[in-house]
This record gives sequence, C-alpha cells and structure tokens, in this order.
Amino acid sequence: MQQAGQLNKGRGQRRKDETRQKLLQAALAVMARKGPEAATIQEITDEADVGFGSFYNHFESKEAIVAAVMETHIERIGGALDEIAAHVSDPAEVLSASIRFTLRKVEKDPQWGWFLIRAGLGGDPLSIGVVRRMARDIAAAAKAGRGSKLDVDGVVTATSGAMLACIAASLTGRMKRAAPERSAALALRLLGLPPAEAEEVARRRLPRIDVP
Amino acid sequence: MQQAGQLNKGRGQRRKDETRQKLLQAALAVMARKGPEAATIQEITDEADVGFGSFYNHFESKEAIVAAVMETHIERIGGALDEIAAHVSDPAEVLSASIRFTLRKVEKDPQWGWFLIRAGLGGDPLSIGVVRRMARDIAAAAKAGRGSKLDVDGVVTATSGAMLACIAASLTGRMKRAAPERSAALALRLLGLPPAEAEEVARRRLPRIDVP
Repeated sequence: MQQAGQLNKGRGQRRKDETRQKLLQAALAVMARKGPEAATIQEITDEADVGFGSFYNHFESKEAIVAAVMETHIERIGGALDEIAAHVSDPAEVLSASIRFTLRKVEKDPQWGWFLIRAGLGGDPLSIGVVRRMARDIAAAAKAGRGSKLDVDGVVTATSGAMLACIAASLTGRMKRAAPERSAALALRLLGLPPAEAEEVARRRLPRIDVP
Repeated sequence: MQQAGQLNKGRGQRRKDETRQKLLQAALAVMARKGPEAATIQEITDEADVGFGSFYNHFESKEAIVAAVMETHIERIGGALDEIAAHVSDPAEVLSASIRFTLRKVEKDPQWGWFLIRAGLGGDPLSIGVVRRMARDIAAAAKAGRGSKLDVDGVVTATSGAMLACIAASLTGRMKRAAPERSAALALRLLGLPPAEAEEVARRRLPRIDVP
C-alpha cells in the first residue's frame, strides 16, 4: 500500500514537473516576443496549453516565473563565462571573450537573444546576470590599467546598451558578418582601448569552451 | 447660407483637430509606458477618453499613429540638431553636441525620453530620425578623420544602443550627474577618440540653442 502510494506520488510529481517545464518554456517564448513587462499570465498559460488556474500551483506571480526563466534559461551561460575568466589572463580579453561567447549563444539560440533584449531594455539591465558579469569584467579591466579609469559606471551602462543593440542587429541581420568579434571590439573601445588594439584583442583565439 | 456652412465646417474641423491632438498625446503617453509594439488602439482611445471607433476617423492603423507621434513629438528636435551642425565645425563636436542636446531634452521631458527608448528598442533604431542624424554625424566624423574608419556601421549600432541605455539610466536616476556630457564622451570613445580627448570635446561650450 505504502509503495503504491509512493508510486502515485511519483507520477503526480512527474506530471507537475512537466507542467512546470511547459510553463517555463512558454514564458521564455512569450517574453522573447513581448518582453517580461508586457507578457501576461494568460498568454503564458495559453502558449503552454495549460489551464490559467494551474499556473498558481507552480508560481506565485509573474515576477516569480520571470525569475525562474532567468535562472533556468539565461543564467546557464554564467558557468561558461566564469570558465573563460579562469582561462584568460588579460582582463580586456576576458571582457572580449565573454561578449563573443554571448553573441555566439545568440546566433545559436535566437529566442534566448530576444529574451535578453526584451528583459534588458525593460528595466535595470544589471538585474541580468550576464550583464552583471560584464560590469565586473569592465571594473576589473579598468582597475588593472587595461582601459580608462574615467567614468567606469558610465562605461558599464553604455556597454550594456551597445551590446544589446549589437545582439538585436545580429538577430535581425543588420549585423551579418563577424557579429561576435565586432561587438567585442566596440565594447573594448568603450573600455578605452584604441580602435586598432581593440580589433586585435577581439580577434585573439578563443578558449575552447562549449556554448551551452 | 454658404458662409454659415463654412462656419459649421470650421467648427467641425476644429473639433476634429482637437480629437486628433488628444489621440496623439494619448498615444505618446501609452507608448512611453509600453512601447509602440505592445500598445493597443483600445488603450490609446481609453487614455484619450474618445470612443474606439472614432480612432479610424483620424488614423488608418496603429502604424499610422506611431508615425504621426514620431513626426509631431520626436522629430521636432531635428531642426535644433541641424542648427548645431551648422554652428560647429569639428565633426566629433557635432556628434557630441547633438547627444548632449538630446539628453537635455530627455531631462526636460521624460515622457519623450521613454517613448524614444521604447521605440528604439522595439525594432530598427534607424527608423527614428534622431538616430538617423546620429548615424550621419558618425559617418561624417569618420570620413573627416575624427575617429576611426574601422566598422562605421558597427559604431552606429553600438552608439544607438549605448545612448538609449544612457537615456534610460538618466531617467531612472542611475546616471545622475552630468548625464549629457558623460553620454557624449562615451559616444566619442565608440567613434575612436582616446578617453581624455573624448572628455575634453564633450565638455566644450555648447552653441546657444533652445531645447524645444
């Protein structure tokens, strides 16, 4: 009897997990289209083909599912970026490699890119882990003398906007050729590197790390 | 009889113009909150306190009212930017002064700034006149040897995103002090100027032109 109960519970839990996964995937799709702010719970449950009410068995609020999408879909790349930081000694190159890696991820998974754009543009870009890491890399490079120490906060703001614009241009085909390397070179100009040196750093061989 | 007819027509036309103005103002407000893509005609007529059906007496579609808001609210600054270009001889300083002017306009009229952000982030930033002018200024500066000739298209893309991020940071208080000058200096870094020179150009005396 107890064993049958556990099996039942296992099946219920599995179904619950499946519904949760469906909701997360649907939320990513809807928010990639309209942004986290404009998306509604109704649209997410419609997209997932689940009843509206069952949403609340899984998430307390729209904010809760936004946070969960971030964690499961967006932040997964964070570990890879940390590996880059561990493999590369020049702090300017760390920033460059992270940006190239992020742009490659966008080329591989456009929905991920659109979600990043819509989420970043809506509110505070620093709420996104990828952007927070970039801010850390910029500060480290400035501190190490790779780039200018003038207005580091401004550089973080401008770089986050510039990179989102490059991602959008890559996704819409306005930046076709070598988007990862060109984006990295532009970020290095903001950091304060002269254009020719920025180009050189942005084209160095990347550490061999898989795009998740 | 004919005169009375004309007077009636005049009154009718005046009322029609008033409704059109209400719709334009409402569209600016709604789109500043949610962006042109997410805004609906229903929300615009609700905000304007006009019947849904009467929208179509004034505009053919949502796209038509977006274009009209652009023309009446956003492009009005264009003439002022052209005056700057006429008063300033250094092409890098033209770019810098235009950006400072735009950021001052944002400080004076936050709704204008939010509309610019939401419109620029949604689709092609070059659909906005202010951004098109910036692209022209960047190309002119690069051609004149004020800045790098490397990847001018990339610089236009990155600068549009960087400036929208600076506008957002200014509006939300994350960039408090001297947002116009700091934004201009960052744009000049993207253009290829060394950080110290970018700071110098961005702090030159502005031509005396009123913010509309």
